[in-house]
Parts: sequence; structure tokens; C-alpha cells
Amino acid sequence: MLKDFEWNKPEDKEALNEEIKVLRNNLFPRLQAMREKKLPMLVLLEGWAAAGKGSLIKELISEIDPRFYNVVTPALIPESQSRYPFLYPYATAIPENGKILFLDSGWVENLVRKSLRREITTEEYQTRIRQINEFERQLRDGGYLVMKLFLHIDRDEQRKRLEELSEKPETAWRATEDDLWQNREYKLFLKAYDEAMESTNEAVHWHVLDGKKRKTAIRDALKLLSNRIDKALDKGRYCGDPFKEEFPMLKMPVLSEVDLSPCMSEEDYKRELKKLQSRLGELHNEIYQKKIPVVLCYEGWDAAGKGGNIRRVAYPLDPRGFDVHPIASPEPHELNRHYLWRFWTRLPRSGHICIFDRTWYGRVMVERLEGFCSEKDWRRAYNEINEFERQLTEWGAVVLKFWIHIDSDTQLARFTDRQNTPEKQWKITDEDWRNREKWDLYEEAINEMLRKTSTENAPWYIIESNDKKYARIRTLRIVIKALEKACKNHFDRMME
Amino acid sequence: MLKDFEWNKPEDKEALNEEIKVLRNNLFPRLQAMREKKLPMLVLLEGWAAAGKGSLIKELISEIDPRFYNVVTPALIPESQSRYPFLYPYATAIPENGKILFLDSGWVENLVRKSLRREITTEEYQTRIRQINEFERQLRDGGYLVMKLFLHIDRDEQRKRLEELSEKPETAWRATEDDLWQNREYKLFLKAYDEAMESTNEAVHWHVLDGKKRKTAIRDALKLLSNRIDKALDKGRYCGDPFKEEFPMLKMPVLSEVDLSPCMSEEDYKRELKKLQSRLGELHNEIYQKKIPVVLCYEGWDAAGKGGNIRRVAYPLDPRGFDVHPIASPEPHELNRHYLWRFWTRLPRSGHICIFDRTWYGRVMVERLEGFCSEKDWRRAYNEINEFERQLTEWGAVVLKFWIHIDSDTQLARFTDRQNTPEKQWKITDEDWRNREKWDLYEEAINEMLRKTSTENAPWYIIESNDKKYARIRTLRIVIKALEKACKNHFDRMME
Repeated sequence: MLKDFEWNKPEDKEALNEEIKVLRNNLFPRLQAMREKKLPMLVLLEGWAAAGKGSLIKELISEIDPRFYNVVTPALIPESQSRYPFLYPYATAIPENGKILFLDSGWVENLVRKSLRREITTEEYQTRIRQINEFERQLRDGGYLVMKLFLHIDRDEQRKRLEELSEKPETAWRATEDDLWQNREYKLFLKAYDEAMESTNEAVHWHVLDGKKRKTAIRDALKLLSNRIDKALDKGRYCGDPFKEEFPMLKMPVLSEVDLSPCMSEEDYKRELKKLQSRLGELHNEIYQKKIPVVLCYEGWDAAGKGGNIRRVAYPLDPRGFDVHPIASPEPHELNRHYLWRFWTRLPRSGHICIFDRTWYGRVMVERLEGFCSEKDWRRAYNEINEFERQLTEWGAVVLKFWIHIDSDTQLARFTDRQNTPEKQWKITDEDWRNREKWDLYEEAINEMLRKTSTENAPWYIIESNDKKYARIRTLRIVIKALEKACKNHFDRMME
Repeated sequence: MLKDFEWNKPEDKEALNEEIKVLRNNLFPRLQAMREKKLPMLVLLEGWAAAGKGSLIKELISEIDPRFYNVVTPALIPESQSRYPFLYPYATAIPENGKILFLDSGWVENLVRKSLRREITTEEYQTRIRQINEFERQLRDGGYLVMKLFLHIDRDEQRKRLEELSEKPETAWRATEDDLWQNREYKLFLKAYDEAMESTNEAVHWHVLDGKKRKTAIRDALKLLSNRIDKALDKGRYCGDPFKEEFPMLKMPVLSEVDLSPCMSEEDYKRELKKLQSRLGELHNEIYQKKIPVVLCYEGWDAAGKGGNIRRVAYPLDPRGFDVHPIASPEPHELNRHYLWRFWTRLPRSGHICIFDRTWYGRVMVERLEGFCSEKDWRRAYNEINEFERQLTEWGAVVLKFWIHIDSDTQLARFTDRQNTPEKQWKITDEDWRNREKWDLYEEAINEMLRKTSTENAPWYIIESNDKKYARIRTLRIVIKALEKACKNHFDRMME
């Protein structure tokens, strides 16, 4: 990419200016069309220090109405201080439909810097490359237009620019130690950038711009921008292929095979609950100190007892270290983005526990059955979700998923009880009754979901909840076992 | 408050447990009613280190469905590293309608710690006390139920608890250096807490709970919670009194007096634009280094030229250091909170510039005229807005407000042009025509707004924009002058 780059020949300045002017004007109807067709676009601009990334973005946006774009410069947080997954700063920043997001450096810079500083291992580097490819493909498949640019200058040019910055007192602070280090180690960086770009040239291709010729770079960037928008508008939003990649799956029973008879006496329940909650409280302390993130996912039939189950798990936790996220139907600003966005933005900091009361699995249940997304969308989602959860466990998170299970008769009994008990009536809506009529369709969808998304790293547990007491104790035990294992693994890793 | 606190007498444990149980059950219908009536509630829990704040919150929420509440523990960022106004962590965290937010320590802890650590001056302390009172009153007036609790323990009890924590290896980390310092300087803290609470006992009163008796504290907190909710549900949401406080106002002309004839030749415009933009670019660099936050507010008639004006101001700015926020009608999650919330959450970090394309002044213009808020609401808003802007300037921000002004004929001409030019049609909607019919009503509201909110610290500038070129140059000059002044003041302060 970079090492065999052919620098541009000088061009006539007047002609270039004219070209830029025309391209800028042509951009305008395209932005309107993007807005109408709700096409979101992400422009990633990577490049050398002092290559002029900021100035290039300035030129690209100079004629654009602020309603059409955002510029974000993600902070590059040292690995030791980062409390979120690698892609978190980018996944939470994605644009809403109809808007362009300009990212002033992003995942490549992050990866290359940390790799050259040895903040991450070779294995982590490889994992992140894979995560980047997954992320870009998911965005593309989700209808995002993604464009990746690298602004290139050679070593002498960079040295000259950094020296110029250093000389003036008012700009000296802009030539940082890190930048000077990059210039000294230019060759090393060149190789690293090249490698990172070669390895992430999959779903979205790279374009290298000549940063030594400012106007040329502006013209080329504008041209690419227009062409990519044209293509995307012409073809319609890309809609990815269905389920492909095979994750190693845990064998799951189908729901109809599940024995729902297990139950527990009040006495046993009280004793066990106390013991287990006390243990969970201790473990919360431990994972907080060890900075292990925990993601607990609850799905289940209406009236299966999710709420009460969650409360028993949450009770012993320190409120400063956990959050419960009740997931309702998406708000407009959430609907206007990739469906995983509203979960990315709700991830816990490391050391915290978050409990999702309903989750991203809505995609393959309610959204599938109610037609809120296309068939391609939900078919593709199993893979996307497996990738998402793998990224969480690669970050170090414990991910557990509970299907709180009851049979249809039990649901009917509980619905009726809710209907007849004034203080429970808020819990039952017409929608619940409507969903109940679709029990069989849901069961089919749930079986498929369990079969396609129960991975070793993020397993599903079917929790028998005809007896709520039994269900709570069983859930607590699973959580405790998983946290104990995570704490032990953490200890083992520290000892290596 | 604290120094004359009477510690509770021991109570019968069984009876207490029974009381707590009843209170917890009684909470339930109240939460449902809050949800129905969309009543938001903020519970601030302050108190000594090791007093048991976390554990108390745990007990309060233990039976509550997670859909009804959130717990937030705002980070206490050292003054030197904080990039936002004092109240930012709290103002951005306020709950949405129908929900309870539990704040695990907040503004009092923040203030007292920083004051005792001498991170802030006595004058800053007094300013913040005033800001707290403004903030609490604004929340109350905006229909928020606010409850403030302080969990009290004496010095010996605190020492005992800290020692217990320190002894066990798995809890030792929870007795921090800061906590031990607090115990050594208990008397100093006692005085400081007392002073801070006495001074913030205005719109919302304090309640001190006995932290030495855990169950008693739980019972008392639950009782208070229920009583306060009952009162609020009974009286309906509090709706504050109209405009009271008199801020020192700058004298503003009424719009009809404004001479709209000023204009500028293309030649002069180009020359000046280049010169001023270059100067503004330099200043951006300077305010970035000096960490001065800048808030530029644009309001104006439809088609007055706000967009083009903003672009000319934004053009020389480094995209990494500024944001433009186009403000449309609020989204549901924004409507569900105090009207200033969506502006608090969009404030720039210190050293950054943010440009609001329409602002919080919507409250006294469109919301007033279209009846989106009550008369009391908008009448009160002048004062609330003046307070909000004063808090921004007290934080160190440059706040400038531009009314981009044209006459009715010019608007008609531009509307017609937009209507007839295909690539401009997206800019003109039926709503624009409808608003135009209300020109006189708007003019009245705008005159009142200019008269009541043009303060020395956050002045309004009426920008004559019949000639857009003139308007842009005039705006740029005002911005430059204000930034130069801010940089100079900053320099003067450093030299003191």
C-alpha cells in the first residue's frame, strides 16, 4: 500500500482549484439524496502525524451544512487505562442515518501505536485485526457506507513539517514527543501501517492519498467521496449475505424437551438464597478489583419471572458497580443507527457488571417475527451476534445468557393473575396477549437462536422457571461458578 | 444539621423489619403512579465515608423493578483535570420522566472535598453554592421531585468501620487514603458538611439519617421516599413562579429599530474574510492551549443566513477542536427530561468551541408560541437561561449569542428563491411558511428575549443580515474580539 505508493505529479493549480470547486458543488445534491434515502456514511481518515488530516477534513466539510456531518477525534487511551473493548470508541461513534461521520484517525492508528509501543501482544494484535474486519463488514452489511483513507507523506516531508511546527512557540505543542518518535522510526511505522492496512483490506478497501500535495489530496478525496456515494445510492443500501461463519457451538436441547418440573421448598430456597447472595457479593468485590467486566443477558417468555430473577442476582451487588438495562423497543435515535449500537453504548466499564433485561437477541425474535427487519437482516444476525459476543469475551468479559423458560399453561396462569391483581396490572398489556398467540412461531425462533448462538465463550442457559425459586437459585449458581472461574483464570494469568 | 444531630434510640428489630417490609410494599403503587404521571425523581445520597451509602441504596432498590430507577456514582474528578462545569456530571445524569435516579454522593461531596483540599478558592466555593441552589430550584420548578439525604456516623464509628475494612485483605482497598484522611480530620469535615448543607437548604431541604443504625436508616429513608412521592403526586408536578431575579441587562434595541441597510462589496468581503479567518484560526490554537471553552449561539429568522454564517466561522477552525450542534425539535428521550438537559449534554470540553445552530432559546420562542410549554414555563425560562449562561461563564466559557436578522421582505424573497431552485428546495418546508405568518408574534417574543437575556457575561448581538456578506464579517469580528479578550484575561490571571 504505502511502500510502493507512486507520488503524484504536480498539477496546474488553477485547474485543480476549478476541479475542487465543481466537486464541492456536486457534493451537495448527493448529501440531500443521502438524507432522503437515510444512507449513513463513515469516513475514516488515517495517516502520518503532520500529514494534514485535520486540514483535509476541514476542506471536505467546508461547504457542507452541519446538519449533514460530524467530526470525531477518538482519544487514544493507553491500553492499561482503557476500560472498554478495543472497538468501543468507534462503535459508539457511528453516524446516524443520512449523516457522514469523519473519524480523524481511528482503529489503525490505535492498533499500530499500541503494537509498536508493545502495549499489546502479537496475539492481541491478530485478534484485533480480525475484530476490525468483522466490524467493517457488519457496518457494510448493516447499510453503512464506509470509506477508508490514508494520508501519506514521506519521512523528509514529515521531518520538515514537524520542524516547522516546533520552531514557532504557538505551534510547538503540536509536534509531540510521539510524533517525533514516529519520524525517527519512520521505517518501522511504514511497515506497521502497511501490514495493518493489508490485513484490513477486506469488506472495505483502503485508499492512499498523497499528503505532500494538499490540493491534489483534497480533489482526490472529494472525488472518492462522490463516487462512493453515487455507487451506494445507485445500488441501494448494501444488505449482507445470510449466516455463514460457523462458530463452535454448544449442543442445546430444543425447548419442548426441557423438563420444567424442578422446584424447591421455601425453606431450602431461603437458606440457599442467603448463602449464594453472600458469595456473589464477595465475588463482586473481587471482579471489581480485578477489573473483570461481566455481561449478564436475560431473555425469556413474558411472565417467566425475569424481573424477580434479576432482582435476586442484583441484590447483593454494590450499586456503584452494576447497572441493569431494561431494553424496550428502540427510540428514534437508536433506530437510526446499526442495531447493535444501543448495546455497544450500554457496555459496562471493566470491573462492572451489567445486566440486560432483554438484549440484542430481539433481532432474531421480535424483529424477525414482527417484520421489523428483513429476512436477510435477521439471518445474518446470528453470525454478527456471535462476533459481537466473541469481541466481548476477547476483551475479558464474562458473558452469560439466560433463557428464562416456562410452559404455555404457566404463562396463562400468570397472565390471568396479573390481570386480576390491581397492583400487577401494569405488567400486562395487550401486546403480551398478542405475543402469546404467536407462541409457536416464537418457539421456533428461540430454538434456532439457541442452536446458532450458544458458544463456548458466551453460552446460553435454559433456566426452568415454572418454579421461580428454583430458577433464581439455579441462575445464581451459574453466575457464581462463572465468576469464580474468571477470577481464577485471572489469577493464573497473573502468575504466568 | 450534623453537629446538633440527635442519634436514634435503639428500636425493636422485629418491629423495624416489619415496618420496612410494609414500606417496601407501599412503594410499589407509588412507583406505578409516578410512571403514569411521568414524575421524575432525583435522590441525592451524601454522607461520610464508610457510612453505608452503597448498602442503603441497595436496600432501597432491592424490590424495585429496574425499569423504575438508575443508580449513578459520579466520578469525583480533580479540579485540575475537569474539563466541564462544576454541575456537569449531575446535570447530565438527571433521570427521565417516571424514573428515580439515586446519586451515590454528588455536589456536596464534590464541593467539600475540593474546598478542604484547597483545589478551589473561597470565592469559587461561594459561586458553586449559588449554582447548586439554582440547579436544585430549576429541577424543582421543572417538575422534578428532588430529595437530599445525608448518612451520618460519628468519628469513632467511622474509625471502627475503616479499621474493619483495612484488616481484611479483600476489603482493604475500600478504605482509601482519602477516607482515612477524613477520619483524622473529622471535625473539619463535620464543619464543612454542615456549612455546605446549611447553605443549600433552599429549594430542597436536607434530611440527615442515622448511619449508625442500619435498619433505622433504611426505614427512615423509605418513609421519606413514600411521603415525598405522595406529596408530589398529590400536588401535581411543581411548576415554578415566573421571572423574578433581575440580572444586570445590556440595553438592546427593539428589532424594528435596527438599520438593515449595511452591506459590503464582494471585493472588501473577500479580503476581510481571508484576514479574519486566518486570525480566528490562530486564536483557536490559543484557546485550545489555554483550555478556554467557547459557546457560540445562533438564532435568527428562517432564511436569515445562519448556516452560511456558521460555515464561515467554522471554516478556519481545527475540526478536532469544535463541534456544530444543529438543534431540531427534541427527540422523545430529550422531551422526557428537563429542557436544558439536551444542551448540558452537548457542552464543549474546555478548550473546544461549540456552535449551536438554534439553542435553548427555543423555549421562549417556538415553545412559547406553539404552546409546547406552559406560560409559567416560558416566563420562568428567562431567569433559568440567565443562570445557565452565568454558570457557563463562571466555568470560564466565552458565551456569545447572535440574532441573525433580516426583514420580512428579504425573507419572502429568499423563500421564493428556495422554492424555485431545485437544489435549495430541501431547505424550505411548509412549516417555514407557517412560521412566517406568525412574524409579528415572533417579533414580540424575540424583543422580550433580547431584553431579558442580554447579559454582560453572555451578550446578544443583532447581526444585520439583509446582506449576508456584511453579516458574516461582522460576526467574525465579534468572535475574534471576544476570544482575544478571553486570551488576554487568561494571561492576566496567570500573571497575578
